[in-house]
Amino acid sequence: MPERVPAEALRRFMAGIYEAAGVPAADAALVAGLMTEADLIGADGHGVFRLAQYIRRIRAGGMNPRAVPRIVEERPASALIDGDNGLGHLATTMAARTAIEKARTQGVAWCGVRHGNHAGPASLYARMVMEAGMIGLYLAVGSANHLPPWGGLELLLSTNPIAVAVPTEEEPPIVLDMATTVAAYGKVKLRAQRGEAMPEGWMIDRQGQPLTDPKRAGEGLLLPIGGYKGYGLALIFGLLAGTLNGAAMGREVVDFNADDTTVTNTGQAVLAIDIAAFGDPAAFRRRVDELAREIRGSERLPGVDRIFLPGEQSAATRARRAAEGVPIPPQLRTQLDTLAGELGAPRLGA
Amino acid sequence: MPERVPAEALRRFMAGIYEAAGVPAADAALVAGLMTEADLIGADGHGVFRLAQYIRRIRAGGMNPRAVPRIVEERPASALIDGDNGLGHLATTMAARTAIEKARTQGVAWCGVRHGNHAGPASLYARMVMEAGMIGLYLAVGSANHLPPWGGLELLLSTNPIAVAVPTEEEPPIVLDMATTVAAYGKVKLRAQRGEAMPEGWMIDRQGQPLTDPKRAGEGLLLPIGGYKGYGLALIFGLLAGTLNGAAMGREVVDFNADDTTVTNTGQAVLAIDIAAFGDPAAFRRRVDELAREIRGSERLPGVDRIFLPGEQSAATRARRAAEGVPIPPQLRTQLDTLAGELGAPRLGA
Repeated sequence: MPERVPAEALRRFMAGIYEAAGVPAADAALVAGLMTEADLIGADGHGVFRLAQYIRRIRAGGMNPRAVPRIVEERPASALIDGDNGLGHLATTMAARTAIEKARTQGVAWCGVRHGNHAGPASLYARMVMEAGMIGLYLAVGSANHLPPWGGLELLLSTNPIAVAVPTEEEPPIVLDMATTVAAYGKVKLRAQRGEAMPEGWMIDRQGQPLTDPKRAGEGLLLPIGGYKGYGLALIFGLLAGTLNGAAMGREVVDFNADDTTVTNTGQAVLAIDIAAFGDPAAFRRRVDELAREIRGSERLPGVDRIFLPGEQSAATRARRAAEGVPIPPQLRTQLDTLAGELGAPRLGA
Repeated sequence: MPERVPAEALRRFMAGIYEAAGVPAADAALVAGLMTEADLIGADGHGVFRLAQYIRRIRAGGMNPRAVPRIVEERPASALIDGDNGLGHLATTMAARTAIEKARTQGVAWCGVRHGNHAGPASLYARMVMEAGMIGLYLAVGSANHLPPWGGLELLLSTNPIAVAVPTEEEPPIVLDMATTVAAYGKVKLRAQRGEAMPEGWMIDRQGQPLTDPKRAGEGLLLPIGGYKGYGLALIFGLLAGTLNGAAMGREVVDFNADDTTVTNTGQAVLAIDIAAFGDPAAFRRRVDELAREIRGSERLPGVDRIFLPGEQSAATRARRAAEGVPIPPQLRTQLDTLAGELGAPRLGA
């Protein structure tokens, strides 16, 4: 059983690390809060797991710890934010907050980011909009290319994700957060760690044959959902979150797992839709509740115990981890202790 | 070889049929133009193929031939349009035009439709926005439920499509138009007509086993792209295009292939993004050109002759059919002649 750490202790620890690495206190608190939220909802590859990598990038000069994101293009329902090469969470939060504020009067708003960085799980920013009572949508260019075009071999595309969050009245909110590949690359790495084979359909090798040994993932290509359809979605999300904002796309995308110094120029986009601009928000939320119940209560395939709505499982994880703490595997604990020692910052839980 | 009919003759024929069925001339011309465009780009299940069905619905009282769509909710960057239960093309065109007009000043705009009807291929409306120099996105609730929730048996969802159109400088525009199921239902019907088996992965039977005989499609369930991911996308697109607008979703969706009289209350949504609100539109279009060439020219899997960009094949079809005419199979020709006879309207090509 891995150690479990209360969310508040995790948040405090991460904020302390960021401050020790030169990040202003308010920014450190914001990013630590969002990364803790990632851990709470079960996005384990996007929370404290990423801390050492982000700090490594800051110390290598690849990311600006004192970044000041700012709006560089603006219309009543749109904005382009330059993230000043800071922690991706800062510019993306600014995009979400700007979209919310604009949508409240304009009905909808779309805000893009350039010169951002990896910003954690897509759902964070869709949820941020949802918590303001709106429908939130988020797109991002992934931080490493793992996907070739359909029929191709060159990794020109990433797992470019989409998240959409829709508020409900009594049901858990509907929150979809998905990569455009059958499996996210993190799932492949997890199989390799566990010594388990991958199912056919996750990856192919360079001859186009199924690749099921996760240790050979380096020679493999991820497969997009629905074949050419997922390829199309990854391309389109990349154009909307990257190219439109003057951010990296295609061969410009830096593999931020392998390279700590090159500016990534990561792009993201947030859409906010004010439900009140289309009718009564409470009536909408009740109708979403009804649909959720209709789906959950509908007839199931033999052997299926339960039909889930998108976001239901992460809501359950969040409730459990908020009560019981966030699991921290021993090797991650060791890495975090080393990091605290290097920076002279308080240790986790200290 | 099927007969080939010049696009202009097809358009004129359809406009004449609509006028004979009581549709005002301007509306008849608009819808006939859009349906001809559907035939030109190769969306054969969405052009003149649908004419008899639409007319049947008008004559059965299920669709209003003299509908006047109007804006019922409005903000500077959003609108909700009530389609007055007319031909879906009318309300959806109004949504696209309104979105374009609003986006020009606001940066982006989102317009929803309720009390619409089937409006043809999704790409038409994304392209309409693109032709105004913007990025267009379109979502719709499909006009018949063919998809169960993931793990379920009840057909609560449709193939809810998305289309996105992105302008280029010299390359064919990037136009993605896809259902959220592995195969659209029309493809299944085509296999049945041809007596060909379906590949595994298109449908399952009610025990969850692969179903490959298209004649048994009535007992089968379409599969979503990427499993639970495509289910999530179909649900989310339905909430955005349907529920948000007060349009049908879930059990409310009427099977318009089987029922000519019940009001469908079909929902659609159009997003327009003015590229100029994010930077120089010409620089953006040139960058999209570069990406398209980068992808097309990249290394291919063994046995792959060419890598396509979304929209390239429909652009080639459009060029060919604009020159050579639209193919009309004999049985469709017979159906159209009968229709013209019943309405006392000029025959196709007459």
